[in-house]
Amino acid sequence: MGLFSSLKLESMNDLFEYELEDLYDAEKRLTKALPKMIDAASSEPLKQAFRSHLTETKGQVQRLEQVFKLIGKSPTRETCDAMKGLISEGEEIVSSKGSDAVRDAALIAAAQRVEHYEMAGYGTLRTFAQQMGREDIAAILDLTLQEEKDADCRLTSIAQTEVNCLAEHATSHV
Amino acid sequence: MGLFSSLKLESMNDLFEYELEDLYDAEKRLTKALPKMIDAASSEPLKQAFRSHLTETKGQVQRLEQVFKLIGKSPTRETCDAMKGLISEGEEIVSSKGSDAVRDAALIAAAQRVEHYEMAGYGTLRTFAQQMGREDIAAILDLTLQEEKDADCRLTSIAQTEVNCLAEHATSHV
Repeated sequence: MGLFSSLKLESMNDLFEYELEDLYDAEKRLTKALPKMIDAASSEPLKQAFRSHLTETKGQVQRLEQVFKLIGKSPTRETCDAMKGLISEGEEIVSSKGSDAVRDAALIAAAQRVEHYEMAGYGTLRTFAQQMGREDIAAILDLTLQEEKDADCRLTSIAQTEVNCLAEHATSHV
Repeated sequence: MGLFSSLKLESMNDLFEYELEDLYDAEKRLTKALPKMIDAASSEPLKQAFRSHLTETKGQVQRLEQVFKLIGKSPTRETCDAMKGLISEGEEIVSSKGSDAVRDAALIAAAQRVEHYEMAGYGTLRTFAQQMGREDIAAILDLTLQEEKDADCRLTSIAQTEVNCLAEHATSHV
């Protein structure tokens, strides 16, 4: 990757496929990372939010496979360096020491960065699909985009109503 | 990092500092990456948008240094794996071959992922500052958050009005 890239972008079709393969890799990685976040979370509502997002993410992988089918390609993964980095940050939080409530607040922060990455990714891909006249594909991508936005809102709500308040009252054990 | 992390999160102060150092590293990296994106962009409005975001980013670095001062700490960088990954993806686009207009569309997509990462980061940090009763710090962070949102909107506007339309008409040279 990087300087020695052989990436060729001749047309919007090329770019659409490149972005699709990147998101497919990102979602696949996320299905492996979320179980660790479920285990690391202490708050029950947070565990539940991660659990339901894992179920959603598996459905989102299937939607991307449906999009591959609609463009007549086999599902292919393009290594998503950004998601690798996001997950690496999440793993640092998962294995952190200290207050459970503060770790929960940190897990939410990490998960919201993931949601925002995906929102940008799906937003772009949906726009490309529309510009290519593929409203059928845009509609599928839009379903996932709305789920990502909803997941982000649920996390904000959990942070505001419970986790950050507990974290703020965490006693420092330094 | 990751499994062998020594990260300790005992209090919201610890988490605030951790997130602040992560964003500081992210912004510093971005000031090195944006000039490459300016050079790689073909559309003049896109070059101009990247140039003004570079100027803004330098100001955002200074604001973070101001926040470090307000909490009585020296500016410190915590390696931001996510921004490393985002920039690596951007570099792959920068060095891609093919249509200039399609590369521009891809550069916008990469830049919008960066903006979304930063929006999530600043949003979280601002909320933490508010919960810690530091409205002075929250106000500084909010200035940058608004700039990131505006930068994202400017990119959407350039994509919709010019770049993607040209990219769609790019002739395939395969």
